[in-house]
Amino acid sequence: MSQELVPTDSLMGRLCAACPREWADYVGHAFVRGLADGSLPAAAFRYYLAQDYLFLIHFARAWGLAVYKSETLEDMRAATQAVSAIIDVEMGLHVRYCADWGLDEAAMQAVDEDPACVAYTRFVLEAGMAGDLLDLLTALSPCTVGYGVIGRSLASDPATRRDANPYLSWIEMYSGDEYLDLVRASVAQLDRVAEQRGGHARIPGLAATFRSATVLESGFWQMGLDAAGRGQAAR
Amino acid sequence: MSQELVPTDSLMGRLCAACPREWADYVGHAFVRGLADGSLPAAAFRYYLAQDYLFLIHFARAWGLAVYKSETLEDMRAATQAVSAIIDVEMGLHVRYCADWGLDEAAMQAVDEDPACVAYTRFVLEAGMAGDLLDLLTALSPCTVGYGVIGRSLASDPATRRDANPYLSWIEMYSGDEYLDLVRASVAQLDRVAEQRGGHARIPGLAATFRSATVLESGFWQMGLDAAGRGQAAR
Amino acid sequence: MSQELVPTDSLMGRLCAACPREWADYVGHAFVRGLADGSLPAAAFRYYLAQDYLFLIHFARAWGLAVYKSETLEDMRAATQAVSAIIDVEMGLHVRYCADWGLDEAAMQAVDEDPACVAYTRFVLEAGMAGDLLDLLTALSPCTVGYGVIGRSLASDPATRRDANPYLSWIEMYSGDEYLDLVRASVAQLDRVAEQRGGHARIPGLAATFRSATVLESGFWQMGLDAAGRGQAAR
Amino acid sequence: MSQELVPTDSLMGRLCAACPREWADYVGHAFVRGLADGSLPAAAFRYYLAQDYLFLIHFARAWGLAVYKSETLEDMRAATQAVSAIIDVEMGLHVRYCADWGLDEAAMQAVDEDPACVAYTRFVLEAGMAGDLLDLLTALSPCTVGYGVIGRSLASDPATRRDANPYLSWIEMYSGDEYLDLVRASVAQLDRVAEQRGGHARIPGLAATFRSATVLESGFWQMGLDAAGRGQAAR
Repeated sequence: MSQELVPTDSLMGRLCAACPREWADYVGHAFVRGLADGSLPAAAFRYYLAQDYLFLIHFARAWGLAVYKSETLEDMRAATQAVSAIIDVEMGLHVRYCADWGLDEAAMQAVDEDPACVAYTRFVLEAGMAGDLLDLLTALSPCTVGYGVIGRSLASDPATRRDANPYLSWIEMYSGDEYLDLVRASVAQLDRVAEQRGGHARIPGLAATFRSATVLESGFWQMGLDAAGRGQAAR
Repeated sequence: MSQELVPTDSLMGRLCAACPREWADYVGHAFVRGLADGSLPAAAFRYYLAQDYLFLIHFARAWGLAVYKSETLEDMRAATQAVSAIIDVEMGLHVRYCADWGLDEAAMQAVDEDPACVAYTRFVLEAGMAGDLLDLLTALSPCTVGYGVIGRSLASDPATRRDANPYLSWIEMYSGDEYLDLVRASVAQLDRVAEQRGGHARIPGLAATFRSATVLESGFWQMGLDAAGRGQAAR
Repeated sequence: MSQELVPTDSLMGRLCAACPREWADYVGHAFVRGLADGSLPAAAFRYYLAQDYLFLIHFARAWGLAVYKSETLEDMRAATQAVSAIIDVEMGLHVRYCADWGLDEAAMQAVDEDPACVAYTRFVLEAGMAGDLLDLLTALSPCTVGYGVIGRSLASDPATRRDANPYLSWIEMYSGDEYLDLVRASVAQLDRVAEQRGGHARIPGLAATFRSATVLESGFWQMGLDAAGRGQAAR
Repeated sequence: MSQELVPTDSLMGRLCAACPREWADYVGHAFVRGLADGSLPAAAFRYYLAQDYLFLIHFARAWGLAVYKSETLEDMRAATQAVSAIIDVEMGLHVRYCADWGLDEAAMQAVDEDPACVAYTRFVLEAGMAGDLLDLLTALSPCTVGYGVIGRSLASDPATRRDANPYLSWIEMYSGDEYLDLVRASVAQLDRVAEQRGGHARIPGLAATFRSATVLESGFWQMGLDAAGRGQAAR
């Protein structure tokens, strides 16, 4: 399934293969399983959503950085499209989605950023700043591509609960054609930029970045569960 | 005239007032006077246009950096709009405009970047990287705002030649309502970001950046004249 | 006591005053109290030491960034001295100190960076990159200055255990004249750079950065306690 | 001669070979020939020296950036040593050397930065910021390594004037063992970092950066000649 999305011989495929345990922990995290069977505590999801709002802001900043770091018009266009999509479309969708879960935008802006959110977002931005466009895209890929891998995996799993699963719309969003097209474009962009920036000789260094980013993404899921455990939704 | 565009007590107004000679040299440069009376050698304009194509790429990169450096959603949105406008609209308009002057895009991509273009673009990007969003916007302002000041000044000057002036469309573009609205938004953004980042206490440092950027913009005009003098259009 | 180190009307004094609860939580953290009375589990300290080795590397990178971001020779010299001190002296001292606790350098280089270490170090680097030198120094100050405040507070507290306290040398290091001179220089540098970069009008924005950095520093202490709780020293 | 300094199969050797005309123009520039036979106008040299003072400041900033961008302790140490050498030693030597030519430090700090100096320094810093450590070191190498190639070439050329050549001490400095050891270390560092960051697959992109930096270095020589032509020493 995910093979189609992430060809084995693509850079993304090789990066996943370089840290199989961390990748499996991330895409199969208890939070994800809770989305699949609908058992995830609403408090965990709400906490996650509020942090994801803050995450989106830094995600847009990362794509702004990608515009700056691009060396070809094609890469500039892809990054510009990503920034626009986040700022002009996704933030609005996210705010509306969160409203359905009882979170309003002013409240989310006032939430303290969780250290797990700080760790992941600043790791990505800093890896991208210290390195080149390829380092930046690699650090972003567990998010960009990973959400599609997860979405598709849940959507295609017969065990995923369809009836009265409050998280079904989340699953549908990340397994929809529109999102999966973005994922394929990201996988292709990684290969294209890799070719300009040293090719497969870069894999050892990139794999270290990818592994850390993947572990920090698992931390982002775990953050939701921990908050629910502490009895804390979005403050 | 330009008072309306750039209020005296705005940050932009104060920056212009801090280097009156350099600002006057820039907005009243021989290149500009040649646009006004149509006497600018076509070779100077063509060389300028080809370098301006390369400039636009770095200009878009600078606005990508501004997305990254923004601290409010309002500033992110303004910077995102600027990136999109350049990449999705202005580059295309510029390419079509250049075609009318006999320059095709492939040729412009193959042109060597002139040291005057390197100096200005990298100065802006580096000032913005080393400093904060306010430093970046300040370094950009002689371009963003200056072109509007020049456009409006030429358009409102009865001495400007209207008949058979090959540069009339250039003048109309930078004095049009659409561009002047952008200028006013830039002036307002400078004031808004200044308020977040130290206010008028920043003026001495910003004035040094602004003055250097203004001198380098004059160098960009001069580059066109020099190329024509050397008998060189876009190679 | 700490008043002398951090004058109330210095920028540092104002930043501490802007988040009194977070600052008190940090300088009076259970980890710190465990250093004072010698009750801190050795496993907590060892885990902390190994992460502190990784921290030092990013700390040196932050001062390298400060060299780049400096606008005066005086600030460049101060940052250069800090980089040299860390790379040429402190890393060696730290390695020797850790050896006394049974940690060798190769082992520390192989340790996974804890998310709490990632969060703090990348937050500092990224705040410094996105902002200016003043943002960078502000993000560094809970560490630079805070360790002196803690060291001096423990050293001057009669309740601090002197006999057979395995952490006495740590306390002596951070309360020694050499370190406190560095702290005073940092406090003075913050005021000096603030004057160049907007002065007290910058305080609201800086206070947000300072508060986040302080909370993440508390997280760094907590990381040690949590590791000991999990029965984990430096792997 | 320079072969020993720059082995043909080193990255540096390949970069020089990728733009033989631009490299030859730089190392054999009229300014350099004027140093060799002592015919360079003193005004050209003085203007060059004053700009070189400003250059050194940005050169130190570039090495500060290299500390930040380093991924290994070995590279951090090399960059730290370079920053320290410039800030703690070379700036002082330069100031004393300039004093012999009638330039005092305050005067040099007040000199306007020449566009040729802006273009080269900001190009290097910006290429290093947008790219990775390898891009940064590549952009620096025409300076770091080039001065050694030039120094050694002049020192070993029997035609170089030894008697009453006011530039002999300049030639001796850049052909001395101390400087040539630095050059050899730089050549080795380029190869080492290349190995970490993609190896020879990076050459096409690096060659474009190297070529631009080399041309801008020639522009730095030309700046001195032009200033003398305009009858301008350091104001």
